[in-house]
Amino acid sequence: MSEESRAALLPEPTLRRLPWYLAYVNMLRVQNIEYVSSTQISKKINVDASQIAKDLYFLNIKGKTRIGYQVEQLATELSNFLGFHEDHSAFMIGVGSLGAALIQDSGLIQYGLHIVAGFDVNPDIIGTNICGVPIYDISELEARQKQYKAEIGVLAVPVEHAQSSAHLLEECGVKAIWNFTPFRIKVSEDVVIQNTSIYAHLAVMYNRINAKK
Amino acid sequence: MSEESRAALLPEPTLRRLPWYLAYVNMLRVQNIEYVSSTQISKKINVDASQIAKDLYFLNIKGKTRIGYQVEQLATELSNFLGFHEDHSAFMIGVGSLGAALIQDSGLIQYGLHIVAGFDVNPDIIGTNICGVPIYDISELEARQKQYKAEIGVLAVPVEHAQSSAHLLEECGVKAIWNFTPFRIKVSEDVVIQNTSIYAHLAVMYNRINAKK
Repeated sequence: MSEESRAALLPEPTLRRLPWYLAYVNMLRVQNIEYVSSTQISKKINVDASQIAKDLYFLNIKGKTRIGYQVEQLATELSNFLGFHEDHSAFMIGVGSLGAALIQDSGLIQYGLHIVAGFDVNPDIIGTNICGVPIYDISELEARQKQYKAEIGVLAVPVEHAQSSAHLLEECGVKAIWNFTPFRIKVSEDVVIQNTSIYAHLAVMYNRINAKK
Repeated sequence: MSEESRAALLPEPTLRRLPWYLAYVNMLRVQNIEYVSSTQISKKINVDASQIAKDLYFLNIKGKTRIGYQVEQLATELSNFLGFHEDHSAFMIGVGSLGAALIQDSGLIQYGLHIVAGFDVNPDIIGTNICGVPIYDISELEARQKQYKAEIGVLAVPVEHAQSSAHLLEECGVKAIWNFTPFRIKVSEDVVIQNTSIYAHLAVMYNRINAKK
């Protein structure tokens, strides 16, 4: 089975667990621990050991009986599989509070997301740069895309501009939109949408706190 | 049924949809639109109209036949229900790139999250402030909690310190931990955990892009 077809088959719950394994295994790597069993991982991250073994087997990663997985190799294979080692170029659409914050988050680049330019309508920030990332007028989007060929558009605009910005991104040919607005944008099926509404998570958390009162 | 017991019963999928409704309705409010039907909301945000009506009915919000929901009232009730109008005090644990970015995100305060102090181990930033939010040494956490009585701890530390920081937060009596690390922290059941691993979302997005290639 090719790398691509395996990738295509991977269900989202599995995909979401893989970064947990990676985070834990990276920690072991820093501690110079050489081998880890699925049982040990299980105890630390609260996922069934059999589920962990199944997830990793799906990626063609097999542990040795009584020894477990080689930490270094497991970390590299997980990171490669997750695409964290590749360079994914991205445009930030909307450089307000959240957009600027995301540009400044060096964590993203560690996970393969390379924000190459930001776009906004605010004349006060157009022409400036944030941590070396140039901020352009949104009207330049199409022209700049010819220059940068960004793969991903990150959406951090006010909610009323979410849909129109998503259309602009689609027209200039990005492959995916990472939507930080709480608005449910619609684009053609060719474009991958990843919704990350951190404010919706806040609502869930508040509700759970109230339920315990 | 009291506000609390209704809150306790609300399933997570419903809770996650409510901020989408709110985002759309807030947009209508800005446009001075007075009424909206579940069918109109449905067309815009890609959720079944019957599901929307059911979700809102659960919150005791009823539309008028042939007219729909009163926009202003719907926005207020949704926002109140979601806890966005209340003030939730929070500590930021780990003021690196992501932690500092979140402190600077004025969006959080609009959604009721008020970060009152940050904590770190880096002597270069201890004693400084970010947008008026003081940064303290992590060793001061317990003492500062007596002063601030923070309800929520936001975790943005390196992954190897996630579990120990979660324990510190639990010991000083926070009600919830908003975990931005990819590490699966464990705390007692009294503490609400909300995981928001934006890097895990990146992995899902990369995988979906590859699957379309």
